[in-house]
Amino acid sequence: MPKLRVHGLTMSLDGYVAGADQGQDNPLGVGGGRLHEWMFATRTARRTLGLDGGEEGIDDDFVAQGDVGVGAAIMGRNMFGPIRGPWDGQQWNGWWGDDPPYHNDVFILTHHPREPVEMAGGTTFHFVTDGIERALERARESAGGKDVRLWGGAQAIQQYMRAGLLDEIDVAIVPVLLGGGERLFDRLDGRGADYECVELVSSAAVTHARLVRRG
Amino acid sequence: MPKLRVHGLTMSLDGYVAGADQGQDNPLGVGGGRLHEWMFATRTARRTLGLDGGEEGIDDDFVAQGDVGVGAAIMGRNMFGPIRGPWDGQQWNGWWGDDPPYHNDVFILTHHPREPVEMAGGTTFHFVTDGIERALERARESAGGKDVRLWGGAQAIQQYMRAGLLDEIDVAIVPVLLGGGERLFDRLDGRGADYECVELVSSAAVTHARLVRRG
Repeated sequence: MPKLRVHGLTMSLDGYVAGADQGQDNPLGVGGGRLHEWMFATRTARRTLGLDGGEEGIDDDFVAQGDVGVGAAIMGRNMFGPIRGPWDGQQWNGWWGDDPPYHNDVFILTHHPREPVEMAGGTTFHFVTDGIERALERARESAGGKDVRLWGGAQAIQQYMRAGLLDEIDVAIVPVLLGGGERLFDRLDGRGADYECVELVSSAAVTHARLVRRG
Repeated sequence: MPKLRVHGLTMSLDGYVAGADQGQDNPLGVGGGRLHEWMFATRTARRTLGLDGGEEGIDDDFVAQGDVGVGAAIMGRNMFGPIRGPWDGQQWNGWWGDDPPYHNDVFILTHHPREPVEMAGGTTFHFVTDGIERALERARESAGGKDVRLWGGAQAIQQYMRAGLLDEIDVAIVPVLLGGGERLFDRLDGRGADYECVELVSSAAVTHARLVRRG
């Protein structure tokens, strides 16, 4: 059975995946940029951005793992962009330019309908207004037997955890205290107990915990 | 200058140092017992309990470090015991029997006065009703040039962090999701930014992060 997986989601020591006051000029909120420095230092992330070099080792292995066996993706609307409410002809097509680093169908969870947007490089954004189960169904169809990657943000992940639909979470913990923002592991309605940690390793910069939902 | 230090404070992946519904029959709250299994497996913790054997290695090194250079201790009242409100002649002398594992003066933060209680093995519990600064002052006097160890719980640590008085925090992260309880890094009024992580290492069971307050 194909899985729904989260990879490389980065959390501060006080549990935030984004800082306070997110917006168009500050997509990760106050201090949130510090969360992803470890990732952009890796060879795999740099290659994704078309850059040479970068570090190999534990951190790079975890970043690379996120692409293996993935055929489609799901993303919350707040991660896709800073716009709230109806799309109203807005031309917002994500933070990632004309050729986003997904290269497959990405299903955006939203309350507001919009036509699909085909980008360069094989990425198409689909806007799903009929709930997280339907988004997963459509992503599975698109993935053709491969796994579906759930990118975030915190609210989308919480929804899938509460529904018992998220199979794996690879979370990276950066030892900084942001003091506010979007908390990842919150409002889980007791479903956190469904997960066990099967791998725990640290580089000098970040700790990786891989959680798997029990059979 | 002697320091105020926290050691071996154990937090779940979702940030709790104790589970929900703490009480006399369940001092660490629902699921809270799982937090300290790693510690009781170490040689140093077992020796403290008068037991042979136990594991050496990273986890043991961190536990042992907590005793080095410490001359006195501070503890919040909720960690000392489950009783709330006035002591009213209560005979509660902590969770640790006649010979508690402190072996120095322990200053308990409380709103309710009580005479000091001298235990076996060099531990005396003092009850401080005139604030965290005064408790630290008294602990420093007692420590005679050595450091003061702050045991917890979450609220006591938050108070000292907000006051800019806590120098070091060695926190252990156990990769379980408790789903509720006492959150450690919360209500910090922006003081979390004062700390930088100087060491981050994992055993298979637990990640240790050592945070130090900047100059």
